[in-house]
Amino acid sequence: MTSEHYMKLALQEAKKAFEKDEVPVGAVLVMNNQILAKAHNQVELLNDATAHAEILALTSAFDSLGSKYLPEATLYVTVEPCLMCAGALNWSKIGKIVYGASDDKNGSHTYCHKSPFHPKTAIEKGVLQDECAQLMKDFFKSKRKNSL
Amino acid sequence: MTSEHYMKLALQEAKKAFEKDEVPVGAVLVMNNQILAKAHNQVELLNDATAHAEILALTSAFDSLGSKYLPEATLYVTVEPCLMCAGALNWSKIGKIVYGASDDKNGSHTYCHKSPFHPKTAIEKGVLQDECAQLMKDFFKSKRKNSL
Repeated sequence: MTSEHYMKLALQEAKKAFEKDEVPVGAVLVMNNQILAKAHNQVELLNDATAHAEILALTSAFDSLGSKYLPEATLYVTVEPCLMCAGALNWSKIGKIVYGASDDKNGSHTYCHKSPFHPKTAIEKGVLQDECAQLMKDFFKSKRKNSL
Repeated sequence: MTSEHYMKLALQEAKKAFEKDEVPVGAVLVMNNQILAKAHNQVELLNDATAHAEILALTSAFDSLGSKYLPEATLYVTVEPCLMCAGALNWSKIGKIVYGASDDKNGSHTYCHKSPFHPKTAIEKGVLQDECAQLMKDFFKSKRKNSL
């Protein structure tokens, strides 16, 4: 399967978040062409600032595999991981991270002078970035409109 | 109560981690002079790379308060937060972070060109740093000895 295929699934997750009034980020975690976890942001639902799509997908995979390391797995996520999620992905030694839109406000690159990811983790970015970014823009636009 | 008082409690948590063969980091989360959460690293026990003392203390407090923000709380932690924990603390908008030893390997300062914490979060460092650092040194020394 292509990166676009899995990113479309991550986008479906992001849309679920949008519909629930959560920041629309979605993630899919894949190993050996099998989906191990799908998740979307649940910060509001859980009242938990750590409940980002990436963290939920990672902890689900740790739990199902009984392993704290995921060197054979790939995480597809619609938006560049924040500092927290980049750090969690680093600890997981995940094999590859594929993300869609860059995040110039909260993305880890805005804080880091060197890659926050594990040296052995491959990075692919910009996959379906326009759709991923548009969803975020639409969300925050609707938020601003509602707060007027 | 002084920072040293709560850091001693965080050190007790770190020692519990040490005894369980976990990297010895402990944390105590305090609000209005009440302890909301005490936690130590449980990465090995839970097979969860995100189960750092800070994350466990934060999620416990989010859950008990029903709030994703902790502007009135202070986190005492024996070692400088890593990138993941710094990011989580940022999202929580915690009022103050007090840490003991700096971490020149995994501490967030080794990745960041600007503070990873929320602009409104006060930072105090170096509290009981020698004890906090010694515990880490002893742990990794014992690990190296066992791996010979």
